[in-house]
Amino acid sequence: MLILVTYDVNTESEGGKARLRKVAKYCVKYGQRVQNSVFECVLDEAQYKMMQYQLLEIIDEEKDSLRFYNLGNKYQGKTKHFGAKPGYQAEGVLLM
Amino acid sequence: MLILVTYDVNTESEGGKARLRKVAKYCVKYGQRVQNSVFECVLDEAQYKMMQYQLLEIIDEEKDSLRFYNLGNKYQGKTKHFGAKPGYQAEGVLLM
Repeated sequence: MLILVTYDVNTESEGGKARLRKVAKYCVKYGQRVQNSVFECVLDEAQYKMMQYQLLEIIDEEKDSLRFYNLGNKYQGKTKHFGAKPGYQAEGVLLM
Repeated sequence: MLILVTYDVNTESEGGKARLRKVAKYCVKYGQRVQNSVFECVLDEAQYKMMQYQLLEIIDEEKDSLRFYNLGNKYQGKTKHFGAKPGYQAEGVLLM
């Protein structure tokens, strides 16, 4: 299934920049960055649970925002991209 | 249907800051801001087409990135939020 990960990390707060780097560094292992704070990840249920757990270990829930959108298995055609850095085929990602 | 709008506007480029404000100002009319550059909009097909057209009029396709994700009509339960500024019920948005 395609999971969309979007996040806002408060870089003004202490340790914010480090958290931002860690979140991106983690997501890049399991998906494709399509915008600065948006990743597309093709995951199964177990991987999705793991990702939630790991990202929650990184963010500061008081200051940062983390959202997951589950686009299911039939996600082709549900995405439209316009402008710079066009997307890619989600299947093209490096699977875990 | 729930449409997720995510965007990266290049604020370093000329007119970038103005484009960023315009994109957010437009999206706020048709949906709920859930993160800095992420909006959730409950739209029908016609409204979705209109939104695409209007946002394309605002962004610079050479410099900015605009993505739409169609989560369909059965979107409840497809979203998870962790951290600051929790989401809301999509139906709570002001419909056009």
